[in-house]
Amino acid sequence: MGLRDEILDQPAAVARLLEAQAGPVAEVGRRVRERAPGLVYIAARGSSDNAGLYAKYLWGTHNRLPVALATPSLFSVYQAPPALGGALVVGISQSGQSPDIVSVIEEGRRQGALTLAITNDPSSPLAGAAELVIDTMAGPELAVAATKTYTTQLTAIAMVSAALSGDVEQRAWLARAPALIAEALELEDRVAAASVRYRYMSQGVVLGRGYNYATAFEWALKLKELAYVAAEPYSSADFQHGPVALASRGFPVFAVVASGRMADNIRALLQRLVTEQGVELLAIANDAESLKLAHTQLPLAADLPEWLSPIPAIVPAQLLCYHLTRAKGFDTEGPRGLTKVTLTW
Amino acid sequence: MGLRDEILDQPAAVARLLEAQAGPVAEVGRRVRERAPGLVYIAARGSSDNAGLYAKYLWGTHNRLPVALATPSLFSVYQAPPALGGALVVGISQSGQSPDIVSVIEEGRRQGALTLAITNDPSSPLAGAAELVIDTMAGPELAVAATKTYTTQLTAIAMVSAALSGDVEQRAWLARAPALIAEALELEDRVAAASVRYRYMSQGVVLGRGYNYATAFEWALKLKELAYVAAEPYSSADFQHGPVALASRGFPVFAVVASGRMADNIRALLQRLVTEQGVELLAIANDAESLKLAHTQLPLAADLPEWLSPIPAIVPAQLLCYHLTRAKGFDTEGPRGLTKVTLTW
Repeated sequence: MGLRDEILDQPAAVARLLEAQAGPVAEVGRRVRERAPGLVYIAARGSSDNAGLYAKYLWGTHNRLPVALATPSLFSVYQAPPALGGALVVGISQSGQSPDIVSVIEEGRRQGALTLAITNDPSSPLAGAAELVIDTMAGPELAVAATKTYTTQLTAIAMVSAALSGDVEQRAWLARAPALIAEALELEDRVAAASVRYRYMSQGVVLGRGYNYATAFEWALKLKELAYVAAEPYSSADFQHGPVALASRGFPVFAVVASGRMADNIRALLQRLVTEQGVELLAIANDAESLKLAHTQLPLAADLPEWLSPIPAIVPAQLLCYHLTRAKGFDTEGPRGLTKVTLTW
Repeated sequence: MGLRDEILDQPAAVARLLEAQAGPVAEVGRRVRERAPGLVYIAARGSSDNAGLYAKYLWGTHNRLPVALATPSLFSVYQAPPALGGALVVGISQSGQSPDIVSVIEEGRRQGALTLAITNDPSSPLAGAAELVIDTMAGPELAVAATKTYTTQLTAIAMVSAALSGDVEQRAWLARAPALIAEALELEDRVAAASVRYRYMSQGVVLGRGYNYATAFEWALKLKELAYVAAEPYSSADFQHGPVALASRGFPVFAVVASGRMADNIRALLQRLVTEQGVELLAIANDAESLKLAHTQLPLAADLPEWLSPIPAIVPAQLLCYHLTRAKGFDTEGPRGLTKVTLTW
């Protein structure tokens, strides 16, 4: 099993999760409704933190929950944690090992908060510390760059949202996630051919907003850790408050645009960047007009609901990073300076 | 008045704020203690969002308040805001104009939350929407890149913290902030001489953690918007969960290290980056061992408390960005693609 196999395993991994964790997720739904937390406090690092960004939007819009991404050093280094008694405290981690993430859950539990671990290892310290556990069921992930653990984390977050809302349509769409990922995987030939163009790219930006703010972050992280491209993620709003100054002629802009409420907003920025500032655009999108603006066009399924789009949308981005890393002659399985399990305090 | 004048005006601006807003801040302290919010929800963009990061740490450690940085699009684009009735909702903005930030305050007030605007324009829509207002008193800021509005925002946040804690020592240190900024400004000759070395730098990373996570973000934003350097901010923990792969020999790493609880943590990473990966380090620090690791050393006052350090620590970073922008031959007053007031929805 290598990185590409793990990318290709995602439809099966997500199907396993949907099937096997329906019970635990329903229990999470019951317990959270019962507590009615005034705050969800999520501790995570790396790709898991990007999954947390998805929760911030999805649980906000669909479940009216205000979500804070934790500052773990308040717990581990400063030992001056905030008051979390009325919160739902969530730890997200593939390995469930990092001491700073575990310390947030432990403190939450000590203060009487409801605690939930979303992890790929139900025997990990993180799972042991939390009252409620969702196992992401992704199977062994050996490549250093997370792929199937990220999409299963997103799916677990969406399952919790559906359990809380009781929304039947949301649940029906979630059942289609494996097929939607499989459809996105069919872009591989097109992605592999396109990747060559970016062989000498060393920096760029990745734009996304709303639900796909998470996609922009995860895509940029993969570009950094696999292809050593200094690619930075921005929302279309934050980008205009400063970093837009970077966008000179020919500057590479990668963007993800899902049809829905956010599409007009991000398309307007892309239009300006392409027509006025002359950037080169690569788009993962099902918004037809955004695709038309792009030099490299990676289309998503047309009927995808915006809230679900981050699950298939990251897949062509993963494939692009894999093929770009090969085109650059780097190691797709063990990037320099990284190990699979990172322990931070 | 140009950018450099505004940087040099910071001791006077912070002194004005401390003097003139003591009353309004005391009132904010009373009202917040009375409400005992379970959550602080901060809406901001750009440099103001970086000030919000400081609040996340300072109000967390000193006042036990969990802080969430808002996702304004939930309010402005998705029109599905989270439940904020029990929160303190804070908008931070130099101009007080951006509709997405105003919409968060308006919705908070509609839901019965306590609302606070921290702005340089007390007649702005943001100030009008909020129940409580702190005027940052920075005076006109004409350069597009924010400098004195950022340090006054940090100071306002620290004043609120001291009002909430009633900590006499914290208040005494705050009174010294203008002098500490003035001392940091004395580094200008050293900074100007050092800036030449980075004339051809096009990318890099900026590391900081804890209270100075905000400093890393603000420094990186200044490098992007003024000098067009694709410099990205990371906490020393997040950097190890992926982006560390970028750190090849000679790669420029800028870091801020204040003596205190976090220093061991970040120094250990810098040591590894310098000795094992061969990066080039520029450090703003009062931690002697971290300075020794650096090729370019910008020392801060030795006795600075860690929680206060972000206020003087950003000053040499501002000066560096100013002189680097000149060394590169770019416009320090009006960077390409940017206007002073950015309206986003």
